[in-house]
Amino acid sequence: MPADDDDRAARVALTWLAEPGNRAVWALVEEGGAAATLHRLLRGDVENGPLRESALAKAANIDPRRLAELTLSRAERLGARIVVPSDAEWPQRVGSLATLALDDSSTRINTDVRPPLCFWVRGSWPLGEALARSVGVVGARAASSYGLHVTTEIAYGLASHDWTVVSGGAFGIDAAAHRAAVAAGGRTVAVLACGVDRPYPMGNSAMFEQIAESGLLISEWPPGTAPLRHRFLIRNRVIAAATAGTVLVEAAARSGAIQTMGRVLALGRPAMVVPGPVTSAMSVGCHSLLRERPDATLVTELSHVLEAVGRIGEYQSDPARGPEHRRDGLDEESALLLEAVPRRGTATPEELAVRAGLALRTVLRRLSLLELSGLIERRDAGIALRRKAR
Amino acid sequence: MPADDDDRAARVALTWLAEPGNRAVWALVEEGGAAATLHRLLRGDVENGPLRESALAKAANIDPRRLAELTLSRAERLGARIVVPSDAEWPQRVGSLATLALDDSSTRINTDVRPPLCFWVRGSWPLGEALARSVGVVGARAASSYGLHVTTEIAYGLASHDWTVVSGGAFGIDAAAHRAAVAAGGRTVAVLACGVDRPYPMGNSAMFEQIAESGLLISEWPPGTAPLRHRFLIRNRVIAAATAGTVLVEAAARSGAIQTMGRVLALGRPAMVVPGPVTSAMSVGCHSLLRERPDATLVTELSHVLEAVGRIGEYQSDPARGPEHRRDGLDEESALLLEAVPRRGTATPEELAVRAGLALRTVLRRLSLLELSGLIERRDAGIALRRKAR
Repeated sequence: MPADDDDRAARVALTWLAEPGNRAVWALVEEGGAAATLHRLLRGDVENGPLRESALAKAANIDPRRLAELTLSRAERLGARIVVPSDAEWPQRVGSLATLALDDSSTRINTDVRPPLCFWVRGSWPLGEALARSVGVVGARAASSYGLHVTTEIAYGLASHDWTVVSGGAFGIDAAAHRAAVAAGGRTVAVLACGVDRPYPMGNSAMFEQIAESGLLISEWPPGTAPLRHRFLIRNRVIAAATAGTVLVEAAARSGAIQTMGRVLALGRPAMVVPGPVTSAMSVGCHSLLRERPDATLVTELSHVLEAVGRIGEYQSDPARGPEHRRDGLDEESALLLEAVPRRGTATPEELAVRAGLALRTVLRRLSLLELSGLIERRDAGIALRRKAR
Repeated sequence: MPADDDDRAARVALTWLAEPGNRAVWALVEEGGAAATLHRLLRGDVENGPLRESALAKAANIDPRRLAELTLSRAERLGARIVVPSDAEWPQRVGSLATLALDDSSTRINTDVRPPLCFWVRGSWPLGEALARSVGVVGARAASSYGLHVTTEIAYGLASHDWTVVSGGAFGIDAAAHRAAVAAGGRTVAVLACGVDRPYPMGNSAMFEQIAESGLLISEWPPGTAPLRHRFLIRNRVIAAATAGTVLVEAAARSGAIQTMGRVLALGRPAMVVPGPVTSAMSVGCHSLLRERPDATLVTELSHVLEAVGRIGEYQSDPARGPEHRRDGLDEESALLLEAVPRRGTATPEELAVRAGLALRTVLRRLSLLELSGLIERRDAGIALRRKAR
């Protein structure tokens, strides 16, 4: 095996020996490379006790190097490839996980946050190119029709604007985001917490096949890996780190999607949150995030998302505007005067002066302007509103 | 007339000569008192040109002093009273308008923001007491059923917690807020932009009668005054200034309620905004405000409102919590181990060690704990999940 293949196989073996993102493994790889780290782990030559024990336990019955070889050749038959940092298509942005600091690093999930050692990829598009201009769209599995609708709007729009839609392949918001991107003729990447050969959940199989054709299925775990619960939380950091920003559409009070947004915020990326009815349990997590994290951004439409992730100024959204009022162009005195004109019937300029609290001189001057604007008309009995004003 | 009645009548006359909140009038009253200011205005002895002209025009046909006397005696017959700053029941909080600074003071509406000179009041409750512990609840006239529902929840809750609900008496959110407070057996204050003798809109007449009985109808304008459009905007500053904070429930993109919230923010009071579906035009204004004003607070329920306006700590709300998970109390190793136990069938401790990535020693120790917790059970074939765990 040439040196490069050594590195590749070692990364596969390391991801099997310890969960991806493991701080200790990542530090060793940074220090001495993947092959040397694998060598040390198999010799029990690491300071970190839990890591040493767990690696030795796993390697007791199976040779990780042999397993890596088998996995690599099996993956090739399945049409999956392995991508490592030395490859041209490596997505550079995930490197930002190297320095990610989290407030709460007491739980194991918050310690396994370092960059991936490798990605398994199904789909022909180069991985780095796919993720260079990408936005995460995540949310609840038990989404409401409202959440699905908003997700579809935003993901369709992102894909139409040549942004890759990244999500986790789950039911609900994730699937709506992937499907909308496919429907827009755009591209989408599903980041899985299991092997790319058997994407989870099974119910989305047809969608996964579409994604593999037009976009990418990617995973840090080798083909054959089962989607254990804690892996979704480890996976979430990749969605946060690989994208330019992430949109949360619906989330219950405690959910994986909220955890993803915590990673997005910790990375300083745009954390965009769609509000919803306060009566919906599926928006409780979104509203909590908006209340608790001032750095989270409330978004209600595509333009807000494009504004947050696009280059500043490229997608400036207009401030929300209601229907045009015909009084809009008027100065204050004219507006007060127009208010004083009775809805029905007429009033004399003197009466208008008293009602509007303006000097008669001012009233006479303004009346001419209002007449020219087509807002009032002079009748024999006095001044009246013009009914069919432009 | 004793000196006190002079002041009272002068304030009534001044409010008729110039709209309430007028900066120039307020400055003169601060300097020399209401009676002297009225005297100066009627002599044309004021520097402010527009004020001088408008006051002289208004006073040309009617003697403001006589008008004030007539208005006061008429009001007495109507069961309305006048309240001025020297009265014990004057609501002190409105004094904060004396120093209100707004970004945009170019329009007349933004210049007429000074404290009221007087209040006309219907209802037996002392005004200052009514407003001491009060929250504004405002929003769209064309409210949705969602907005009306949320308003009712919040206003009912506020009234039940002995907070006075203050609003503007309009259709939609305002009326829902007043009605919920009445329904809760609590108190509510309607701040009107017209005379308290003919509250606007007529369609809410029965409600206004209820409010006059159990709460208060108040206005800066004397009985008989018509609700001209610009008066609602002048009135809004009173809702903002008289309350401990204001809740916005629904608002279109440009609306009076948004302007009220601008006043609330300028006064540094809690500006609380209820989000809604992004698909609803009635929440566009709310979402714009939350996006544009970082000092606005997103609220979804009563406890958030109480927390914002109550003394710190008095109404601490719990962070949103989802359903309890039986795994919640577990340490990380036990959680990983539990995840590794197959959903159906059994696994040996050795198999679990490999799946969970834990040392066999650790697995054996944790299994005992999980068994004691009733989460797993040992069968002949190995370890299994316990179906009816507590």
